[in-house]
Amino acid sequence: MTKVTGAGRDADATTRRRFLRQSGAALGGIVLGGGAAAATAEADNLPPNIPEWMKTPGEPMGSQPYGTPSPFEKNVVKNISKNLKQYISASGRTPLQDLDGIITPNGLFYERHHGGVPTIDPAQHRLMLHGLVERPLIFNMDDIRRFPSQSHIYFLECSGNPVYTKPYGKTASDLVGLLSCAEWTGVSLKLVLQEAGLKPEAKWVVAEGADAAALTRSIPLEKCLQDAMLVYSQNGERLRPQQGYPLRLFLPGFEGNMSVKWLRRLHVTAEPVYSREETSKYTDPMPDGTAREFTFTMEAKSIITRPSGGQRLSAPGFHEITGIAWSGHGKIKRVDVSVDDGKTWQEAQLQAPILTRALTRFRFPWRWEGQPAVIQSRAIDETGYVQPTLAELLAVRGDNYFYHNNAIWPWRIAADGEVTNALA
Amino acid sequence: MTKVTGAGRDADATTRRRFLRQSGAALGGIVLGGGAAAATAEADNLPPNIPEWMKTPGEPMGSQPYGTPSPFEKNVVKNISKNLKQYISASGRTPLQDLDGIITPNGLFYERHHGGVPTIDPAQHRLMLHGLVERPLIFNMDDIRRFPSQSHIYFLECSGNPVYTKPYGKTASDLVGLLSCAEWTGVSLKLVLQEAGLKPEAKWVVAEGADAAALTRSIPLEKCLQDAMLVYSQNGERLRPQQGYPLRLFLPGFEGNMSVKWLRRLHVTAEPVYSREETSKYTDPMPDGTAREFTFTMEAKSIITRPSGGQRLSAPGFHEITGIAWSGHGKIKRVDVSVDDGKTWQEAQLQAPILTRALTRFRFPWRWEGQPAVIQSRAIDETGYVQPTLAELLAVRGDNYFYHNNAIWPWRIAADGEVTNALA
Repeated sequence: MTKVTGAGRDADATTRRRFLRQSGAALGGIVLGGGAAAATAEADNLPPNIPEWMKTPGEPMGSQPYGTPSPFEKNVVKNISKNLKQYISASGRTPLQDLDGIITPNGLFYERHHGGVPTIDPAQHRLMLHGLVERPLIFNMDDIRRFPSQSHIYFLECSGNPVYTKPYGKTASDLVGLLSCAEWTGVSLKLVLQEAGLKPEAKWVVAEGADAAALTRSIPLEKCLQDAMLVYSQNGERLRPQQGYPLRLFLPGFEGNMSVKWLRRLHVTAEPVYSREETSKYTDPMPDGTAREFTFTMEAKSIITRPSGGQRLSAPGFHEITGIAWSGHGKIKRVDVSVDDGKTWQEAQLQAPILTRALTRFRFPWRWEGQPAVIQSRAIDETGYVQPTLAELLAVRGDNYFYHNNAIWPWRIAADGEVTNALA
Repeated sequence: MTKVTGAGRDADATTRRRFLRQSGAALGGIVLGGGAAAATAEADNLPPNIPEWMKTPGEPMGSQPYGTPSPFEKNVVKNISKNLKQYISASGRTPLQDLDGIITPNGLFYERHHGGVPTIDPAQHRLMLHGLVERPLIFNMDDIRRFPSQSHIYFLECSGNPVYTKPYGKTASDLVGLLSCAEWTGVSLKLVLQEAGLKPEAKWVVAEGADAAALTRSIPLEKCLQDAMLVYSQNGERLRPQQGYPLRLFLPGFEGNMSVKWLRRLHVTAEPVYSREETSKYTDPMPDGTAREFTFTMEAKSIITRPSGGQRLSAPGFHEITGIAWSGHGKIKRVDVSVDDGKTWQEAQLQAPILTRALTRFRFPWRWEGQPAVIQSRAIDETGYVQPTLAELLAVRGDNYFYHNNAIWPWRIAADGEVTNALA
């Protein structure tokens, strides 16, 4: 290694001279215009100087049988409101602006619960399937695990993401952090229902959770027979307690709380049960005094996560604009990006694989000249639906609306590079 | 909820009577033959009895800003050998037999390091790119983050997975647990090399890690220009320290230790450097006394993870056989399963999406009648390569071989349902 290190030291001084000369030229300057200055300022810390962590052995194997993030990432945690009156019915948001790709790690998956998180012994847990079926059934977890399995990458999103109520949030997480995406493994609900045998009058399935809120939602039978799952694993490992351990319902593309966690009962009925969570909550008051109910599917949506509120562009030059798009109706077909306050739009690049009802990562190359700017993205899904502006939504729905806000959310970039919510 | 609970209680007694009558009939019996007895034996705990965890509020939001698994999953951790002389150069295996799907959660991703895990301050970390380039460059992490990004789901596997040396392991994790799969986000290495400008003599890139072992490997330039990445994120969040935080090389399909972690230097050269890890280690001694070197690509392979060694079939009846397949040469084309000790083979179902150089989950429905059996899987990749048996491999390579064992690994099922390694 000595010889290579020596060569490196010679190269080092050359590097900085040439690099600064090249700055602004070709891709070198475009991508790294800002970085050059920083590298020069810290010349004493540059390789081939041997950093402290190479001089002694690192942490031995086994100090973390179940791993954790670097201590330098200790601020990347769920975004939880401070000073609430209680935290039993509350939510914790995914820090979207700190994440890449489409998979949300389980430790940062968003949470929303109505009666706290129960600690359930899987050996004691039971799922009852009854009502309008030929054969009522009770399953333990071993029974569930013995059914044929399937795995799919799907997003999950709370319908109040974000709510229409001001003040609007500052960061991507504040706005739409009640959104995550994972690989879910479990059993086709259709298969389980077929096992019990549906009676002809069956039209709805009422799902009940084993939490202190006994959270209860009515689900159209059609969805249960389409792509609904009974899920026991998330990103490979068993569900986290916050996600319904040991068993949850999962309804791809539907508003989050219908995917009932800690699932203990499926009651097949002819009519919906009109539970609290589908009458006083999770309905949409309209300007004419009526309320939309059973608005299940999350419409197409997108958000730029970098640069986004709370971040700062370090210097003029090349900056990739990247974010995520999703639709409860299927695949994302296209994402457009505007960097001139919505006057013009250009098509972003989508990262494969583009999966149905999963997050899709988009990217758009941008050169920022240091001027104030407003940037935003809009999603178009495979049905042709185009994500609307907030003004367009409010014009239709009025400001008494609470859930199902899928508006475009623009970010304002100041001359000093600071990024803020352009609608706040 | 009272009314529904009442209905549930009536249904409950009916459920068990009908369920036992149905046992063995149609899919009901096929899937749930074993579960019925268990459900009956614990009748007092069945719904609609209200479990303890529904009677008081659960854990409040925020008690885990970064989540952890259920306490009932505390034994699902990395598989680390006990009583080693030291744990600075050691490995921790992924508990494959406890996982579903294709994504490995970051907390259970396999580890292998040669000088312990360094704790690196990302603000101090630098990557130097020098040697046969027009413009030597030094990057800090901000520079790296400003390049255009990309995300891909790829497996990573150690070349000693498993070694040929007896005794062979007992579980899927013992055998091939130096294997995991994640969504990686970072920068195209080709783009970074273009930024520096390659000289015509450039043929290899020597990568060096910032750990106490200064782990060093030579990589053919062709691979660097094909699909190699500089990776900073894994499954959405920043790399874990054990995976190279803040920056690692990633070479899809190549043996794991070439994807140098804690990456601090890329030295572009005309010849390989012949480092320790490509001469005394990670080469393949052959029966004629020569040694294969630079055997980079991991060949097609598969393993049944359920049922697998250390598990037990609870009862005769329906059991899904499931496992994972992968190839460093591209996509998995087919997986065959044999349940009669290799006499006959049938095609398994592959779970979409089938991605290049990623794990692919396969499934095969099986009815076990209670007889002793030997089950196994073999992978075929898109090049047409067929995973060999251990006997076939040993015939070619001899038993002085250590790395690159991609043999079929059969499991023996005893009459009592116990699953063991059929080759041990």
